[in-house]
Amino acid sequence: MANFADFCRGFWCGTKNPNVRISLPGVCFVWQVAMIILFGLFVRYDEESDAHWSEHKHEKNITSDIENDFYFRYPSFQDVHVMIFVGFGFLMTFMKRYSFGGVGFNFLIAAFGLQWALLMQGWFHSLDPVDGKIKIGIENIINADFCVAGCLIAYGALLGKVSPVQLMVLTLFGITLFAVEEHIILSLLHARDSGGSMVIHTFGAYYGLTISWILYRPKLDQSKHLGSSVYHSDVFAMIGTLFLWMFWPSFNSAISDHGDGQHRAAINTYLALAASVLTTFAISSLSAKKGKLDMVHIQNATLAGGVAMGTAAEFMISPYGSLIVGFFCGIISTFGYLVITPFMEKHLKIQDTCGIHNLHAMPGILGGVIGAITAATASESVYGHEGLVNTFDFEGDFATRTPATQGGFQAAGICVALVFGIVGGIVVGCILRLPFWGDPSDDNCFDDEVYWEVPEDEESIPPILEYNSHMVGKSADMMSDTNFSVEQS
Amino acid sequence: MANFADFCRGFWCGTKNPNVRISLPGVCFVWQVAMIILFGLFVRYDEESDAHWSEHKHEKNITSDIENDFYFRYPSFQDVHVMIFVGFGFLMTFMKRYSFGGVGFNFLIAAFGLQWALLMQGWFHSLDPVDGKIKIGIENIINADFCVAGCLIAYGALLGKVSPVQLMVLTLFGITLFAVEEHIILSLLHARDSGGSMVIHTFGAYYGLTISWILYRPKLDQSKHLGSSVYHSDVFAMIGTLFLWMFWPSFNSAISDHGDGQHRAAINTYLALAASVLTTFAISSLSAKKGKLDMVHIQNATLAGGVAMGTAAEFMISPYGSLIVGFFCGIISTFGYLVITPFMEKHLKIQDTCGIHNLHAMPGILGGVIGAITAATASESVYGHEGLVNTFDFEGDFATRTPATQGGFQAAGICVALVFGIVGGIVVGCILRLPFWGDPSDDNCFDDEVYWEVPEDEESIPPILEYNSHMVGKSADMMSDTNFSVEQS
Amino acid sequence: MANFADFCRGFWCGTKNPNVRISLPGVCFVWQVAMIILFGLFVRYDEESDAHWSEHKHEKNITSDIENDFYFRYPSFQDVHVMIFVGFGFLMTFMKRYSFGGVGFNFLIAAFGLQWALLMQGWFHSLDPVDGKIKIGIENIINADFCVAGCLIAYGALLGKVSPVQLMVLTLFGITLFAVEEHIILSLLHARDSGGSMVIHTFGAYYGLTISWILYRPKLDQSKHLGSSVYHSDVFAMIGTLFLWMFWPSFNSAISDHGDGQHRAAINTYLALAASVLTTFAISSLSAKKGKLDMVHIQNATLAGGVAMGTAAEFMISPYGSLIVGFFCGIISTFGYLVITPFMEKHLKIQDTCGIHNLHAMPGILGGVIGAITAATASESVYGHEGLVNTFDFEGDFATRTPATQGGFQAAGICVALVFGIVGGIVVGCILRLPFWGDPSDDNCFDDEVYWEVPEDEESIPPILEYNSHMVGKSADMMSDTNFSVEQS
Repeated sequence: MANFADFCRGFWCGTKNPNVRISLPGVCFVWQVAMIILFGLFVRYDEESDAHWSEHKHEKNITSDIENDFYFRYPSFQDVHVMIFVGFGFLMTFMKRYSFGGVGFNFLIAAFGLQWALLMQGWFHSLDPVDGKIKIGIENIINADFCVAGCLIAYGALLGKVSPVQLMVLTLFGITLFAVEEHIILSLLHARDSGGSMVIHTFGAYYGLTISWILYRPKLDQSKHLGSSVYHSDVFAMIGTLFLWMFWPSFNSAISDHGDGQHRAAINTYLALAASVLTTFAISSLSAKKGKLDMVHIQNATLAGGVAMGTAAEFMISPYGSLIVGFFCGIISTFGYLVITPFMEKHLKIQDTCGIHNLHAMPGILGGVIGAITAATASESVYGHEGLVNTFDFEGDFATRTPATQGGFQAAGICVALVFGIVGGIVVGCILRLPFWGDPSDDNCFDDEVYWEVPEDEESIPPILEYNSHMVGKSADMMSDTNFSVEQS
Repeated sequence: MANFADFCRGFWCGTKNPNVRISLPGVCFVWQVAMIILFGLFVRYDEESDAHWSEHKHEKNITSDIENDFYFRYPSFQDVHVMIFVGFGFLMTFMKRYSFGGVGFNFLIAAFGLQWALLMQGWFHSLDPVDGKIKIGIENIINADFCVAGCLIAYGALLGKVSPVQLMVLTLFGITLFAVEEHIILSLLHARDSGGSMVIHTFGAYYGLTISWILYRPKLDQSKHLGSSVYHSDVFAMIGTLFLWMFWPSFNSAISDHGDGQHRAAINTYLALAASVLTTFAISSLSAKKGKLDMVHIQNATLAGGVAMGTAAEFMISPYGSLIVGFFCGIISTFGYLVITPFMEKHLKIQDTCGIHNLHAMPGILGGVIGAITAATASESVYGHEGLVNTFDFEGDFATRTPATQGGFQAAGICVALVFGIVGGIVVGCILRLPFWGDPSDDNCFDDEVYWEVPEDEESIPPILEYNSHMVGKSADMMSDTNFSVEQS
Repeated sequence: MANFADFCRGFWCGTKNPNVRISLPGVCFVWQVAMIILFGLFVRYDEESDAHWSEHKHEKNITSDIENDFYFRYPSFQDVHVMIFVGFGFLMTFMKRYSFGGVGFNFLIAAFGLQWALLMQGWFHSLDPVDGKIKIGIENIINADFCVAGCLIAYGALLGKVSPVQLMVLTLFGITLFAVEEHIILSLLHARDSGGSMVIHTFGAYYGLTISWILYRPKLDQSKHLGSSVYHSDVFAMIGTLFLWMFWPSFNSAISDHGDGQHRAAINTYLALAASVLTTFAISSLSAKKGKLDMVHIQNATLAGGVAMGTAAEFMISPYGSLIVGFFCGIISTFGYLVITPFMEKHLKIQDTCGIHNLHAMPGILGGVIGAITAATASESVYGHEGLVNTFDFEGDFATRTPATQGGFQAAGICVALVFGIVGGIVVGCILRLPFWGDPSDDNCFDDEVYWEVPEDEESIPPILEYNSHMVGKSADMMSDTNFSVEQS
């Protein structure tokens, strides 16, 4: 029987060959060289990061260097950067044997994605009409990090089930789709979405969920023993949770308007997050026998308030409005982990490793809706005339737009994000089903052994055993013999 | 005998029922709903976070958005935020089986406490006399985080021995007491305490120690095997230590005066912390056989310099003055861990899990005293006339106050903090002794199993063993049989 | 045989006595007292952190507190601070049993070093000619952190093989050498090196490598089983990697020119780092059987792009230039880990625990060369007249210097850094060979047991075993007996 099983595994490995020795370096090199060429052709410093700035400063009557956009946004940029690399990365270390893949592949695709995002977003938003170059500054690199976030959310649904090469492909297409979708929502529809409830979370989540649906693995339960956490891996994941939670006010305020816009966005997000912590703990405890809390909920659902404030954070939603948003999102998100994720896996064939449907999809759509309502009900009495114009950018072509119309365009934005996520996901999912991407077999998922040199974990063997034999394997063999002989005797 | 022990344990569990399935969600929901209602009635944006700001700016002749208070304080706010959630949270992960409770309950009570703090502190400090609303901005949310810090310090004394419901009660009362005490010290006495040696550390520590004294557990040694650390949990705790240590300059400078005030507070704290690292290492090594360092000291006493600079950081204490403060605090705090904590547990019946007496109580009082002395000896020659007025805020009702008088009022502030901590602790401690809060029994302390779904830790079983049996439990049984048979043979 | 081995070990321990109970506290106390005295004699607040600032402000026509240098540099300072303590500290936790020493001794020497650096750098750069005092502000404490970085890099080569007392000596001399070298390079040669490719990385790396060469341990393979990682320790090390990677843009921009200088330095570093991630993954996968990635490469080589941008980051190297730098550094650095480190250990007798030759030495020199070339090819058409003068500080004595000459002086700076590193390393290495520093014997390296109270790790024993015996040691003994009897039977 054992031989037959081995034969089957070997056969399986034959069809699914997770050796990426050629494909991964190939993709990395080709793309990095392409980036260098494209940057050489297209990307230059913008006015505020160019050495000519001292001259521009005189022309614009700027008296102090502190008014360089760098000082308005750099602290928020670094917080966002921490969320992308440590936040998303460590949140994905929760599995007992996929911490390397969680934090490592997150690192890889984020570093690739941000370069491609600078180009794609640059072509749409920062192209200098005079010389045809993309001019980059601090706001562009924040936006590149945002763009990457969409792909990392999608990775959350696929964690442990795809190869790094598939992730690179997912990121290449994901960034491209993101840039187009963002252009439609922010420029054509002129919707506001400074923290990206629609453009980042809704798009990213449905993109990932659709791909996961296309890549459905019917025999994934063969890897189930590796898909759960151990004590220390849950503590590692809390590093991710907390850095995401703490810096979310920076995420939602990083590119909103200077002055009161950034100020208000930070406060609103801070409050919504605090409220969703309390309702997450409440539902988690209420749902378990003996009221025991579940780390999965605490690690994820506590963040839902930040997602749902992505659109409305810079609006005058008022402090209690933010608390209400957080209140309901904590409930909905935890409920999702309890009921919807198992349902989706069983009945809809969507395997969502990190539960991004609960953390990003539902709160993201909700955030878009809240933004639409808050925009539609905005008034000069609440915002002041100048405040209303500044907040919704009712200038130029959009000078005559009313709040009510703005609300409608905000709602249209949600649909655009959804359509791009689902249609894009179907296309990219089909591409990722091609047989040469090096993804693992169903019984090899959630296992770092497949793509990483994993250190032998001598700690798990009692020290004395090690002492008595030169090889750990030998010692363990002896031990199993012992057990058997005792059983037989 | 074993049966009898089981019976006793069962009986004990009967009287101490740590099931919080009704109480925890109940408290979370009721309080969060109350927060929403109170925020709806009372809380609005302040001038600088309101959309009307662009109008106010013109009125006040502010030329640039960069002068919004947001840009003065947001980077420090985020550092403080990291200290509250990652710093305090991970510092409390040091126990082998209470990391979930350390970081998780810290998260819960901080998220609750900051909402209540915005209200309580708002009523005292930010009430708009015109419309009776609390107007919040960046400084309020920093102060809310500060206020929460007091309760988290108190949690340090009780770590592993109380239920989350008790922690919520402790926080509710703690924040309330804090806001009153702070009002008396900062507004009525007009003492300066920008980093909170008195209002945060002294109050928080004595509040927690008094509660711990009231909740004394005579049979706590039954849980002693769980109260210590393992290798990895000590490394996790160092994450907390380092983020607290690094960001303490932001803590002490976050709400001090714009310009030189914040600048000086950061430098002084930086120096005091550096000095306390060296003396902590020295005393730790000196006290141990063979000079071996103790992680408990490194994790905690290195921070004492920051606590002790909480009052004087913004004063002209001079760089060498800061070093002297750090020098002595490192010594005193490490000495506390070696001598005073065991003494208090044995003779005073105060069980102080994290040793907050050494890290917050003693350095906090010392910090208050240093602040009083530094204030009393301030002079126009050192500060300049304008500098003296700015630093001690000798304006309005206090325009005629002299530095010597100020020193006296500073000293009075220490007493107020002490009285509030001890009296408040007695009252709240008695409330927490009521039998329905779901606290664990004496042999169940320091154990995450009580309030958390803890993953089965397959790693601790050698992999081969697992292989030979379908159930981990069975395999372990076999192994224990082996040992017994060998012993008998 | 076993007895003889024990005898030898005892004998060895006799000659190598790692008891630091007298020496470590002694050194800490003496130096901290010396610091206090020297600070008392020499160190005062500078204009912007002194309470007289409000008067200076009027004199200088500064209208807003926001123009205090604190607001230009404090966010970057805190990022640098995180790199020094969490970045370097956790990067060195990768070994299975040297995490305490990695993060703990890093903490100790950084806290000592920054005080000494404030003095040494102050004497050279911040001495007030009027009163002979060192005037410190935010830029000084950033520079002190930078100075410490040089010594922490050197520690990387020696990790696990030296005593804390040796590290203190290494730091004392390292900081001293650093300050002199920095003065020659930055002031006398007037080279630019805001991120320290030359003054920090090249100097620090060759200083450490030379000391490691002098302290060569021929029998280090006796400790080899402890010199590798386990699963969780590799995840801990990723915390260090990511915080270094994320905050490197702050490191390279922290002390560059206000305005476009800081802005450009951050963007360039961000891009170089992103490119080196991709080429590191590529080479790591390409070099391994089955394409499996190696955590050592990911933890280290991904950072090479930041090191190599240390000089040129503030220049107009252009975005694609930054990508090219990162591209090649990722390749070179990973190649170093694969080929050069083993070669150096075998043939050059240089044991480099963390591979600083690959991460700091090679990319550091390369960074110096890139800086020299970029400076030599600078032109007014690219920088603008004012921009050129500002960027290279062509003012005062250096008003007539041309970019080409500047390039030559930049190149001379590399040589100065190299000479100081190597000659300084030889001298300090010889001092550290003296027999009374308490370093561990060859079979005791990489082991926290030597200098730390290490908690008994009960987790590594299956829980049931523990149950059957009161002492872990006893249980383990029984188990080994079992194995033996089975073997014999």
